[in-house]
Amino acid sequence: MRQRRIAIVGATGLVGQEVLRVLEQRNFPVGELRLLASDRSVGKKIVFRDQELSVEATTAKAFAGMDFAFFAAGGDVSKEYAPIAAEAGALVIDKSGTFRMEPDVPLVVPEVNLDDAKAHKGIIASPNCSTIQLVVAMNPLHQRNRIKHMTVATYQSVSGSGREAVEELNEQAERVLHGQPAAPHFYPHQIAFNVLPQCDNFLDDGDTQEEWKLIHETRKIMHEPALRIGATCVRVPVIVGHSEAVHVEFTRHFSAEDAREVLVESPGVKVLDDPVVALYPYPWMASGQDEVFVGRIRPDDSLTNGLALWVVSDNLRKGAALNAVQIAEEVLRRGWL
Amino acid sequence: MRQRRIAIVGATGLVGQEVLRVLEQRNFPVGELRLLASDRSVGKKIVFRDQELSVEATTAKAFAGMDFAFFAAGGDVSKEYAPIAAEAGALVIDKSGTFRMEPDVPLVVPEVNLDDAKAHKGIIASPNCSTIQLVVAMNPLHQRNRIKHMTVATYQSVSGSGREAVEELNEQAERVLHGQPAAPHFYPHQIAFNVLPQCDNFLDDGDTQEEWKLIHETRKIMHEPALRIGATCVRVPVIVGHSEAVHVEFTRHFSAEDAREVLVESPGVKVLDDPVVALYPYPWMASGQDEVFVGRIRPDDSLTNGLALWVVSDNLRKGAALNAVQIAEEVLRRGWL
Repeated sequence: MRQRRIAIVGATGLVGQEVLRVLEQRNFPVGELRLLASDRSVGKKIVFRDQELSVEATTAKAFAGMDFAFFAAGGDVSKEYAPIAAEAGALVIDKSGTFRMEPDVPLVVPEVNLDDAKAHKGIIASPNCSTIQLVVAMNPLHQRNRIKHMTVATYQSVSGSGREAVEELNEQAERVLHGQPAAPHFYPHQIAFNVLPQCDNFLDDGDTQEEWKLIHETRKIMHEPALRIGATCVRVPVIVGHSEAVHVEFTRHFSAEDAREVLVESPGVKVLDDPVVALYPYPWMASGQDEVFVGRIRPDDSLTNGLALWVVSDNLRKGAALNAVQIAEEVLRRGWL
Repeated sequence: MRQRRIAIVGATGLVGQEVLRVLEQRNFPVGELRLLASDRSVGKKIVFRDQELSVEATTAKAFAGMDFAFFAAGGDVSKEYAPIAAEAGALVIDKSGTFRMEPDVPLVVPEVNLDDAKAHKGIIASPNCSTIQLVVAMNPLHQRNRIKHMTVATYQSVSGSGREAVEELNEQAERVLHGQPAAPHFYPHQIAFNVLPQCDNFLDDGDTQEEWKLIHETRKIMHEPALRIGATCVRVPVIVGHSEAVHVEFTRHFSAEDAREVLVESPGVKVLDDPVVALYPYPWMASGQDEVFVGRIRPDDSLTNGLALWVVSDNLRKGAALNAVQIAEEVLRRGWL
């Protein structure tokens, strides 16, 4: 297979590092690899396929000749450099929130709406982590029996906020265990041995940006602009892996058995659901795995045609790096570059 | 005020210890105090109001002459000894699940259904921790504007499972921080840096007992036998303090401002709700406090007349010990002994 020239922006971050791991594990046809980051990481050495590479500065010229540019830095970096990279001829796969809701930017989860990618104009957006695992699990059910309403409560790990947040959790946990006060720096309040009902910033209506993204990105990906979703997004002291408690109302009766059967057959989904032996997914086991795990599939009799489910996935892999690489793989396979 | 003779069953447990603290802090008229526990705790010394007391064995004879018997041991102990204590003339206030759904046993949260306590026949049940904080927050809203449906996702601390669970979390956290494997003993899976979608045992329909309790106890306390509630109960690596993400559908429009005003005036509730300064409740701050804290009060536009709220309380205090002592205080005040 023809080797592709790849740039990774934010190569030293948690998601950037995971993109490298996923490219290597999936044997992606990587020819030239350009690792880009902010100035303070320039010169850092990173090993890819037994080859040591130096991190370079993210500049407008860095994208010349690239086939793909994976953006895994902040929204500001994407805003500045993604159009430049696209202009230079690279297909940008952007993990930031910058372009996701732009009408002419496809927002893609391959298991759900791969065909949207075809119409790209140089930038394809990868959704927010909590959105990806939700749609991978819920879209197959929706295709079988239209969803009328969903309530989603999330349990989101700190790695979703980046490396600093992981360090903060570890440091605070160490301090709390030794009876010392744990002052917050990255998050507004202590996260160790605590939960915070805030992911991302607050909007005027009282929702957080994370809640807004979960609702609006899901609608765009599922092509259901009026889908009714209520959400509360919560940060929990978990390092990797987001979990979601989902209560869904369907159009027609949907037995837990039928839903389980649909999910067992669904791409990217793995059902772990046997309460008798305490089998259900949880973030510690999902960490490092590719699948979106679903368990606790059961009737919610408080709703008409209701089901409840528990959805867990590694937010750095399917929630970020893996989804981005899968988009690139599918674009190559279909000749949509 | 006349001093009362008090027995505490399970005096060495987390809830029993909290009952002692609450009795002392609230200056309850404690005359004789009898500390009862299982055989392995007999002879242990506990200080109450600067007086050292010895733990005695829980026996049928131990309740003779007692005015109140607080049961804070397991369901089996309540089942065996609560009827004996009541027969001996003590008013039993039982924290276990044993009698809660018995038609002739009042299930009481003083802020919500104190009058139910009057008809007691020697046993008053105190609800499950996650139920208490839910009804303290939701009943005032329900009184103003009838609730049609609630979806509740919980974030429950390990102290709700007792001392062993707290030790397990601390030990596992220490091991994980030092790169060692953390085998589960008390819970079916690791709880440190993880979340588990299981509180209590599973029922045949796929719900857990904890979810069943949250639904059915709430209905009994609020005198709404058909109230529609969907629930997912989740254990999180928090030591003390349960949190709940609640999405509610009301009969008529309910603005967030109106709901906030109702809650500010509601007994036992403290509103902490100003997103601009990241003001919302979380378990680390609620620990050791008496109130049920409510924040993130906002519209849920996915529902007709919907609101979302975030409810946090100390599961050992209002969720257990404080509620039990408040029941005793009110019974005394009203001469319902």
